[in-house]
Amino acid sequence: MTPPPEGTPGRRPGGRSARVRAQVLEAVRAELGEHGYEGLTMEAVAARAGVHRATVYRRWQDVGGLLADVLDAAGEDDWGPPDTGSLLGDLTALNEEIQESLAVQPSVPQALMAAAFRSARAAEAQQRLWEDRYARCEAVVERAVARGELPPDTDARELLIAATAPLYHQLVLLRTPVAPRAAVRAATAAALAAGAGAFGRSERGPAGRPPAGGRSVPG
Amino acid sequence: MTPPPEGTPGRRPGGRSARVRAQVLEAVRAELGEHGYEGLTMEAVAARAGVHRATVYRRWQDVGGLLADVLDAAGEDDWGPPDTGSLLGDLTALNEEIQESLAVQPSVPQALMAAAFRSARAAEAQQRLWEDRYARCEAVVERAVARGELPPDTDARELLIAATAPLYHQLVLLRTPVAPRAAVRAATAAALAAGAGAFGRSERGPAGRPPAGGRSVPG
Repeated sequence: MTPPPEGTPGRRPGGRSARVRAQVLEAVRAELGEHGYEGLTMEAVAARAGVHRATVYRRWQDVGGLLADVLDAAGEDDWGPPDTGSLLGDLTALNEEIQESLAVQPSVPQALMAAAFRSARAAEAQQRLWEDRYARCEAVVERAVARGELPPDTDARELLIAATAPLYHQLVLLRTPVAPRAAVRAATAAALAAGAGAFGRSERGPAGRPPAGGRSVPG
Repeated sequence: MTPPPEGTPGRRPGGRSARVRAQVLEAVRAELGEHGYEGLTMEAVAARAGVHRATVYRRWQDVGGLLADVLDAAGEDDWGPPDTGSLLGDLTALNEEIQESLAVQPSVPQALMAAAFRSARAAEAQQRLWEDRYARCEAVVERAVARGELPPDTDARELLIAATAPLYHQLVLLRTPVAPRAAVRAATAAALAAGAGAFGRSERGPAGRPPAGGRSVPG
């Protein structure tokens, strides 16, 4: 993937320009959901949005530019991770959100992930969105540490990836349906491992054992 | 994704036909590694393999057919999961294999996963390969149960997905490099959770608690 020449899309003033952007991005999401990346064209987006083609070309250049802006726009919300009062509750609620967004047909997030394999600009924007989302979710781990549920040196990102990766893996890569309990099961496994110190920032493994070459499961 | 009209590619006798297949599939892997899905054409594959274009078209029909056969061929080996004598050792060695295959540049497995978003036949074959690989890996869990490392009702597939998903998630979807210790860390977390009963087949959670609505992390 080569990086795009410009990391950020054009200016985003309010008023008419913001309205045009909202219409166009909504049209991209609708076209993506209906036809996937294959069917996404500048012409169809302009027609659906009721915006001049020339405007769409000038502002977003190409389909990659449209996808990147949809992804950037997704990161401009005030989304925060669930706050249920417990680590297990928070991770479960987070996984339920993920499961819902990926299992719905058509799934715009799924279509965007697929598009990121085609467009370098979409891939960059997808990466920015992931990073932003995982950074926001670190609050879940900080709260759990503050409540005494987790060791203070827990690597928040590592824990969050362990908790959420099984759902993405099954629904996006393995393309297999998951049981309704999958969200809570993956959350439970990650919370248990985290409570046992599996995600400590030190190089040593849980219970002070070196991580490599162990011949049995600690605990 | 609509299923392909035929689930399996053509006949596979030995002799000349097997040699032609080996040459063509090797050419597909080489072209994929060098140019990705975008650059993969029937013509380039035929030229690289030194096989008549007509033969390639007759036997594999299109690029999707070539990709599906590369994936099916990958499942025809006698690969088995590592047997190190411990659950943690086996899962770590498995993750190290995965990490290596995904991090190498160019990565044929990565290119095949990307292609599965484009071709329904490749997606079906990719799914068959995943299922076969995870089924073979269940031996790791059976051995751990036999050694007394894991509860007998451990859901092997769920444990294997928890152990391997973080690497796929980071290297394929998040497109972020992972630390060298990532393989052992993900293996350790899954092994700890499994030892604590997180992947029990019963509907009840670990330590006999119901899985949903818990307000604290068991353990």
